Amino acid sequence: MSKHEVTPIDNSLDNFMIWVSTQIFFGKTALEHLPEGIDRYGKRILMLYGGGSIKKNGVYDQVTSILKENGYFVVELGGVQPNPRVSLIRKGIEIARENKVDMVLAVGGGSVIDSAKGIACGYYYDGDIWDLAGQTVSTDKVLPVLCVLTIPATSSEMATGSTWLNDTIVPHKKAGAHGPYVRPRVSYLNPEFTYTLPARQTAAGVSDIMCHIIESYFSNEKRAYLQARTAEGMMKTLIKYTPIALEEPDNYEARANLMWCGAWGNNGIIVKGNYVSWSVHGLENSINEACDNIHGEGLAVLTPHWLRWAMNDDNIYRYVDFAVNVFGVDPTLPEREIAEQGIKKLEEFYDKIGMPKKLGELGAKYEDIEKYAERFNIPSTIAYQDGAFVPIRFNDAVEIYKSAF
Amino acid sequence: MSKHEVTPIDNSLDNFMIWVSTQIFFGKTALEHLPEGIDRYGKRILMLYGGGSIKKNGVYDQVTSILKENGYFVVELGGVQPNPRVSLIRKGIEIARENKVDMVLAVGGGSVIDSAKGIACGYYYDGDIWDLAGQTVSTDKVLPVLCVLTIPATSSEMATGSTWLNDTIVPHKKAGAHGPYVRPRVSYLNPEFTYTLPARQTAAGVSDIMCHIIESYFSNEKRAYLQARTAEGMMKTLIKYTPIALEEPDNYEARANLMWCGAWGNNGIIVKGNYVSWSVHGLENSINEACDNIHGEGLAVLTPHWLRWAMNDDNIYRYVDFAVNVFGVDPTLPEREIAEQGIKKLEEFYDKIGMPKKLGELGAKYEDIEKYAERFNIPSTIAYQDGAFVPIRFNDAVEIYKSAF
Repeated sequence: MSKHEVTPIDNSLDNFMIWVSTQIFFGKTALEHLPEGIDRYGKRILMLYGGGSIKKNGVYDQVTSILKENGYFVVELGGVQPNPRVSLIRKGIEIARENKVDMVLAVGGGSVIDSAKGIACGYYYDGDIWDLAGQTVSTDKVLPVLCVLTIPATSSEMATGSTWLNDTIVPHKKAGAHGPYVRPRVSYLNPEFTYTLPARQTAAGVSDIMCHIIESYFSNEKRAYLQARTAEGMMKTLIKYTPIALEEPDNYEARANLMWCGAWGNNGIIVKGNYVSWSVHGLENSINEACDNIHGEGLAVLTPHWLRWAMNDDNIYRYVDFAVNVFGVDPTLPEREIAEQGIKKLEEFYDKIGMPKKLGELGAKYEDIEKYAERFNIPSTIAYQDGAFVPIRFNDAVEIYKSAF
Repeated sequence: MSKHEVTPIDNSLDNFMIWVSTQIFFGKTALEHLPEGIDRYGKRILMLYGGGSIKKNGVYDQVTSILKENGYFVVELGGVQPNPRVSLIRKGIEIARENKVDMVLAVGGGSVIDSAKGIACGYYYDGDIWDLAGQTVSTDKVLPVLCVLTIPATSSEMATGSTWLNDTIVPHKKAGAHGPYVRPRVSYLNPEFTYTLPARQTAAGVSDIMCHIIESYFSNEKRAYLQARTAEGMMKTLIKYTPIALEEPDNYEARANLMWCGAWGNNGIIVKGNYVSWSVHGLENSINEACDNIHGEGLAVLTPHWLRWAMNDDNIYRYVDFAVNVFGVDPTLPEREIAEQGIKKLEEFYDKIGMPKKLGELGAKYEDIEKYAERFNIPSTIAYQDGAFVPIRFNDAVEIYKSAF
């Protein structure tokens, strides 16, 4: 808490704060700078990773050989799952404390990084890590997190937030801590590390990035012109390079543009000064808690339905911008037709990269729609809805879910 | 120096580092967070400002009353001039040392911030500050710099660099120090503080921003697609909002977009991963050292001439992008015509906002062209030219200067 009275930051163009403090080493030789980053924080490292893909593609060997050569103390914890589990975070906190580590090094994607953030927040915290879910961590008593990114998707490598799945309560629940000191201190982005990503993961990652951009772009803050134009450039980047990366997995230019675009997606530059309500993310989280599906696939299914549901006379200008500036739709057509063509082009893009179209494909059940909507309609999600592009309430969530079956 | 052998960072898409660590408080209530920033670094402040405009428009009173209320020790140094003088920086270092300050608070534009950076670098340095001109400062023994920005132009509020005019040598020379710890720690951007800017300063500031964007955009790094699209959005922002700000100086939306765009112009996001040779800045610096003109006006004169000079079959695609994506030129025209129309539109923009068209208007003399070109042709400028969009040598500089008379 600040001792000074301040007007609460509302994230509009009138009043926002941005602090993208992560140092990024980007490119083919990024890892050479690993010791430079580590040395700033200490010598004792908890290295966190996922299910073993880094052992297959050589990233594990590259990282561990650098750590070994430089004589760091390293304790490893593997096995982080997608929709990262609170149970593993608790285990990580114990290991980190037992070994008195100075930092957590996440080698992987958003789930690994978000787990690292959980361990980092929990290290100095006396209570249980789930107490911090949904909270802003304002203390700097957080272990430094460093990342070696292996999939562009969540922006977690450059963002203040984290999302965890509490697998120790029924029903499972998704939430996480955020705050300036939760943001990774140094992230290493080598696009070559994504060459071996399976097509489905590449595409689901892109859908996650696309949704971050779309949720920022379809905002009530009409004055955030710079952010909107930047968002358009980012969407064009995904549209141009995703098919290339799927066709030629080792195309550096494509992988580099996707990786850098992913880091920007939710690092603040299009989000700040531009009220974002994360409506689609909220809708997807409810599905995700129940189905444990791939997050990006859920977002790809829901985004076009949300866009159609939210369109009205007051906000159609933004749909027109989207269709014309991102997809090159003919601006001389009638407004509604332009808008509808933009959404169709987006659906075609998702289709082209192999995303599912219906919630049923994710394991969701039509008869559970009201349960999903109830889960959406909880205070922590609803809190964001007041200033939303179009506020979503229980009945609206039901309507959007129905249209996506 | 790192003890680890690393491949030198060449700033291409293959190998770059970005670390935009400045915390930004943006908007109408930004200054309320001044104590939050200051308290992180200490209690003793050297407050630096310029020629007195902040005393007329109320910014001085707002800042000093916050400093007073919070009981900080403050020593003031006013009188920073445009093209900030090394002589004043030396004086500032002495005052800072005598008063054992913890930080430098710059209240003003790029010249004030760059002077603050000079004082910050010099504080712990045993030799003379001019030794650091053109150098990368890699030590963290640099006083923290905080900024209250009053004019969008240089990006210095969010950038690692600084530029000083050495007025104690003949002929005068422009150079400055840069490095990650030179970047301001916290910057306060309240667009309302720019309402009282004279039209000429508003427009010259925009020309500086436009040139940062154009020099990043017209780059040899063809693969930096995300950066190029972002640059286009930034240029569209300037083109839309500068005339509005000149017409309605207190239009918040216009001032906010210009201010935020200015911070991005040279903070790294379009510069990194995208080799930038700063050719126009180099050409303008030679004029500036001789004429002490307004930097942004010199850039506005030179930019179109540089663009025409540099166009060739290999790079014309970028001129076409520029004309079509930024100015909406008809993409079905012949390529050369599209390119020329783009440059003409840029000239019309400069004209509309009141920029000069010829070097003579800045006080430059036709008979001195070779002297200007000799000054351009020094190792520190030429070092950047190898990977330039089109490398400029002595004879090229002469040719570009001639066309601008």
